[in-house]
Amino acid sequence: MSSIFGNKLKVSIFGESHGKAIGVVLDGLPSGIELDLDFINREMSRRQPGKSVFSTPRKEKDEFEILSGYFQGRSTGTPLCAIIFNRDCKSQDYDELKNLLRPGHADYTGFIKYNKFNDYRGGGHFSGRLTAPLVLAGAVAKHVLKSRNILIASHIKSIHDICDESFDSTNIDEGVLTKLRNSDFPVLDNRVGQKMQKRILDAKNEMDSVGGIIETIIVNLPPGLGFPFFDGVESRLAHALFSIPAVKGVEFGEGFNITKLRGSQANDEFVLDGDKIKTSTNHNGGILGGITTGMPIVFRVAIKPTPSIGVSQKTVDIYNMQEATIAVKGRHDPCIVPRAVPAVEAVSALVILDLMLEREGEYGLSGNFEKPNR
Amino acid sequence: MSSIFGNKLKVSIFGESHGKAIGVVLDGLPSGIELDLDFINREMSRRQPGKSVFSTPRKEKDEFEILSGYFQGRSTGTPLCAIIFNRDCKSQDYDELKNLLRPGHADYTGFIKYNKFNDYRGGGHFSGRLTAPLVLAGAVAKHVLKSRNILIASHIKSIHDICDESFDSTNIDEGVLTKLRNSDFPVLDNRVGQKMQKRILDAKNEMDSVGGIIETIIVNLPPGLGFPFFDGVESRLAHALFSIPAVKGVEFGEGFNITKLRGSQANDEFVLDGDKIKTSTNHNGGILGGITTGMPIVFRVAIKPTPSIGVSQKTVDIYNMQEATIAVKGRHDPCIVPRAVPAVEAVSALVILDLMLEREGEYGLSGNFEKPNR
Amino acid sequence: MSSIFGNKLKVSIFGESHGKAIGVVLDGLPSGIELDLDFINREMSRRQPGKSVFSTPRKEKDEFEILSGYFQGRSTGTPLCAIIFNRDCKSQDYDELKNLLRPGHADYTGFIKYNKFNDYRGGGHFSGRLTAPLVLAGAVAKHVLKSRNILIASHIKSIHDICDESFDSTNIDEGVLTKLRNSDFPVLDNRVGQKMQKRILDAKNEMDSVGGIIETIIVNLPPGLGFPFFDGVESRLAHALFSIPAVKGVEFGEGFNITKLRGSQANDEFVLDGDKIKTSTNHNGGILGGITTGMPIVFRVAIKPTPSIGVSQKTVDIYNMQEATIAVKGRHDPCIVPRAVPAVEAVSALVILDLMLEREGEYGLSGNFEKPNR
Amino acid sequence: MSSIFGNKLKVSIFGESHGKAIGVVLDGLPSGIELDLDFINREMSRRQPGKSVFSTPRKEKDEFEILSGYFQGRSTGTPLCAIIFNRDCKSQDYDELKNLLRPGHADYTGFIKYNKFNDYRGGGHFSGRLTAPLVLAGAVAKHVLKSRNILIASHIKSIHDICDESFDSTNIDEGVLTKLRNSDFPVLDNRVGQKMQKRILDAKNEMDSVGGIIETIIVNLPPGLGFPFFDGVESRLAHALFSIPAVKGVEFGEGFNITKLRGSQANDEFVLDGDKIKTSTNHNGGILGGITTGMPIVFRVAIKPTPSIGVSQKTVDIYNMQEATIAVKGRHDPCIVPRAVPAVEAVSALVILDLMLEREGEYGLSGNFEKPNR
Repeated sequence: MSSIFGNKLKVSIFGESHGKAIGVVLDGLPSGIELDLDFINREMSRRQPGKSVFSTPRKEKDEFEILSGYFQGRSTGTPLCAIIFNRDCKSQDYDELKNLLRPGHADYTGFIKYNKFNDYRGGGHFSGRLTAPLVLAGAVAKHVLKSRNILIASHIKSIHDICDESFDSTNIDEGVLTKLRNSDFPVLDNRVGQKMQKRILDAKNEMDSVGGIIETIIVNLPPGLGFPFFDGVESRLAHALFSIPAVKGVEFGEGFNITKLRGSQANDEFVLDGDKIKTSTNHNGGILGGITTGMPIVFRVAIKPTPSIGVSQKTVDIYNMQEATIAVKGRHDPCIVPRAVPAVEAVSALVILDLMLEREGEYGLSGNFEKPNR
Repeated sequence: MSSIFGNKLKVSIFGESHGKAIGVVLDGLPSGIELDLDFINREMSRRQPGKSVFSTPRKEKDEFEILSGYFQGRSTGTPLCAIIFNRDCKSQDYDELKNLLRPGHADYTGFIKYNKFNDYRGGGHFSGRLTAPLVLAGAVAKHVLKSRNILIASHIKSIHDICDESFDSTNIDEGVLTKLRNSDFPVLDNRVGQKMQKRILDAKNEMDSVGGIIETIIVNLPPGLGFPFFDGVESRLAHALFSIPAVKGVEFGEGFNITKLRGSQANDEFVLDGDKIKTSTNHNGGILGGITTGMPIVFRVAIKPTPSIGVSQKTVDIYNMQEATIAVKGRHDPCIVPRAVPAVEAVSALVILDLMLEREGEYGLSGNFEKPNR
Repeated sequence: MSSIFGNKLKVSIFGESHGKAIGVVLDGLPSGIELDLDFINREMSRRQPGKSVFSTPRKEKDEFEILSGYFQGRSTGTPLCAIIFNRDCKSQDYDELKNLLRPGHADYTGFIKYNKFNDYRGGGHFSGRLTAPLVLAGAVAKHVLKSRNILIASHIKSIHDICDESFDSTNIDEGVLTKLRNSDFPVLDNRVGQKMQKRILDAKNEMDSVGGIIETIIVNLPPGLGFPFFDGVESRLAHALFSIPAVKGVEFGEGFNITKLRGSQANDEFVLDGDKIKTSTNHNGGILGGITTGMPIVFRVAIKPTPSIGVSQKTVDIYNMQEATIAVKGRHDPCIVPRAVPAVEAVSALVILDLMLEREGEYGLSGNFEKPNR
Repeated sequence: MSSIFGNKLKVSIFGESHGKAIGVVLDGLPSGIELDLDFINREMSRRQPGKSVFSTPRKEKDEFEILSGYFQGRSTGTPLCAIIFNRDCKSQDYDELKNLLRPGHADYTGFIKYNKFNDYRGGGHFSGRLTAPLVLAGAVAKHVLKSRNILIASHIKSIHDICDESFDSTNIDEGVLTKLRNSDFPVLDNRVGQKMQKRILDAKNEMDSVGGIIETIIVNLPPGLGFPFFDGVESRLAHALFSIPAVKGVEFGEGFNITKLRGSQANDEFVLDGDKIKTSTNHNGGILGGITTGMPIVFRVAIKPTPSIGVSQKTVDIYNMQEATIAVKGRHDPCIVPRAVPAVEAVSALVILDLMLEREGEYGLSGNFEKPNR
């Protein structure tokens, strides 16, 4: 009831931050997909901690092992399970905190939800570490989408109050998208990027943290994906995006800003581009009535500042029901935004692939039909 | 695949704006609920058009008829179907537009999605009119929640660039909530409300439209509702909210603004209030790790300006594949925000009731056990 | 949670035997399907009561009204809702029985399940009358399948201990299937059919009832429909078939009899028929590993004797918690088997169409692409 | 779309017979359940091959490893993943057969379904070996049900044409049920059991195989579990049972035999037993209208003879599209029935626990509330 998502392509994640392993089951993947393990590793390394001063020094290798659904280099069409063993766990960091509810974390809600039987170490199943199997599954989905030329890219739109430019969602420069996909700190304006990094370091030095906004674009989509009402593309993308820990807002196209436009400004006029119908602007972010228009999908995701901070805060000792103070030591990111980028892209890729499979059926996206080498 | 929503309580809507009838099936409603038909009618009249200068003069009576699941004044526990016959349809208003794609509407995406077999009259199934059965179902859900003292209220946070105050989500004044629930134009500051109404009339006079933001609060929730990841409360509420036509953004608690706070500011500290655990602030909007904390849930929803405007716009004649211009006459709201308020509350009530049923099972929320009058 | 079925094509039924109306919502039907209303009426008349001495004299006209999802003679692709108003209800027949649990019926379980708030008149939502909207939906599904030459036919395999021949599921005579589909009492051997009818009349004369077995065949299926394990064709068909009131057993191919064969007899050998792979026998009923082989699907369904009988039986008065006796007067079928045939075919057609849509996507089964007459 | 089952308790299986590992994810298990690892091992050993002359000499140890959802000896409430590594695989046994479709197996349908990219070794994902993780999950479910005194037991009703007695489903002797649960070859009449074993050995000696029928009983159920129509107990049990490889028929209560009774014989009369309502007979197998009556659920499952036999059979070489002959060597069970018993019980336990959770909510079945030893 909690950790499964999707209609035709079902994603199921499991595991706890300090348990034996975390993992994912992908059910409904078309058969015959030649997995690009290097690409999966690259995607996972984008999410990986310990790479820079901006992120936690916890050094998980995040090496994955595919247990099923993969044969002779290709997907079999039956459930693909991949796991990542937990190695560099320092559970003792959490032992002294185990009764103290970390503000901004799910310690309290997990305790209540599971009648105190939740694994409290490192947030247990609520840990951001669970985005690792999501990124793995998303890498597979991205790879399939790429065979249809559907590309996903993101940049950091803001860190704290420092803002990058916005995507031009009517004239796409695919070169820019490629550059963003290969960057650890993707921004459109590099000078802004440097200011952002300084802002993160300042927060770190003060044992505090900052958040930011991620802007994502999906290009070369066919029109007609999605459904009216409850299976609309915005509904399904938002559902998936809000499942990423720390996300507190999602908006499409102009988003909240569209409320400050008049109808005559907000409407995207239809024009002909050869025999294709396009819109001259894209304030609706490529979606009308829950269904893709064929224009790029654009959305923004608000990521809150990392709740784990060294600054002292008030809290409650849940076992002794006493007020207390807490300063989270452990190893934490002063800003989770850069590592959230691949997670945002991953769930988006999974939603789009699911919609494609619903539209085209199982065969449409299967691997090619060359005879395998039996 | 499109018009069904919910886990334990399933809501299914059907109908087209100018078809015979629109309606809803509610499957999974507990038995024995004494329906308050007056309350349902009041909720529906909040959504109803034709009441004021701010909304379309189309006068639908929106009288509903319960076809099933209702016996001797109470829910039976089996599917409740209610329908609303369409009466005041002027389909000819749409006949001259039928080949012209209305900018900002789903005419184009519906045409592509359904291979041109969509009912184009008045937007067909994509019409905002489909929120009427949602409001009906939501009224039933609100009624059940009220038996647990769970209340939902909203105000218009902004129209165009005119802003109301925000809810205080730590100290709730239930009197204010009651006042808002009985208002046709709910605002916290009435002088701001008057400015908003003038702004709407100005847009109307210029044959244009405006949008705005709705802020909603849900109080007296138990802690522990929801799930980590894909069935988180934010995921499920956002999913439902984005299914309402014209919604382009959803944010919880501080929302996008939380990205401008530091962790030490954004975290809600835990405190004891007698033997209860609360948070001293509520920047996270009552949800941590996808699960309710017991603090009020607060969220905001961005509603775009009504796409149907009298101002002339460029478009495409989809049958002749020629560029054209369009000015939508018909009868339209210069601002849909006030009528969207009950729809926002309705889907929220349905999601919360569904979560309650998952948590407590079927019996927990059933009607009382007095012997019915056989 | 109870009355919705299907993955890509969702069927939702609602209503009570003596309520205002019963109906069905079909969500996920491809667009552009030209509905054959005569065919739907013919299918419904196969299920209709009051036609012969073998069935209840209750004369429901079962006229349906399509409320949505249907425009200019074709499906729109959005939810199709159809309702059937209840007319010839004699609720007073049930008033004197309302506290007496009818043996073999759901009176007791419905009372417990819904905390005594169930509509007890005529079985309420549990009534066999709810198969009318199923037959309606099934007629639409059959019509779509026919465009792919997929045909469904049935015969009455047995009534009480009188048995008809079995289908030859390797060499199909489509002429026989057509004859069966147009018969009110479909049997392969007409002399056996006459004996069956006499057996039903004998039971009727003694105020008792009999049951029987229905054998169904589905021909011209493509191989490759279905899934391993939980979405296997047998699982999904059996799920749907057991939802028909009075069904107590389902078996595929040789069914229970296969347990009396050795492996060397039960296995269906593969042979080449031109460039096609077939099996020389069909003991597995066209399904291996949950997936269609391309051979006809064959299954049998056990229908219990109608529980409503005039013979006096022991029971309990649920309101006064006293033992009592009951003799059900009302108007009842001495044998429900002939009227169950179209229900069995209907749910089968819905399952097969759902599987086709999952395999081929939304476009594959849409109506043709001629320009509608705008 | 294929390998996930359940509403509130979702079971997802993955893996291939000769891949790295097979496993299961259980999502929705209540928290605080003290797992009895010995009991799980005992259940798994009931399914395990290599124990006797009646089963394949393949010696899988079937040691499982719980990766998640398990902390300090109890379930956490978050997804429980357990895997079983594949060890004793002799894939070369399959190499020479890889192009030859084994009659009665899913080799052909898996090839078509997955565009020839299926893992063909040992049946891949279609292998009966996938029932091992099901038995594991079922052992957990049985353990939870036992805390409510709900017990599941089975006996081998027949092997080939040798039949055991039937359960008396109105007067339960729980001692008999305990004896059956601890037997490797559970029968009510031991002399019949010996004849059955001889029949299996005879088939083995002739390189052939036999099938049989399993009869299962579930006792001490509360009345009111289940739903009318599509979520009926029969529908959900049958769905799960038909997902077990080799199952070709399922019947409840009197099953197919009920068609040979008259209504006056088939109806179960209601009687009072103190303040409880019971039925004096149980021809309906404890289910009326899809909902439990509180009487034991009784059903029978037909298991076909093992398709892998040493006898030579006709088949097709799928790669060269030529007719051929095949004699399956490998290591196979001459009769799968005894090893199918725990699988039948496992899926039944999972369905019943799911229904209990839907009825009682998450708290009802959670472990006790003692403070864990933090």
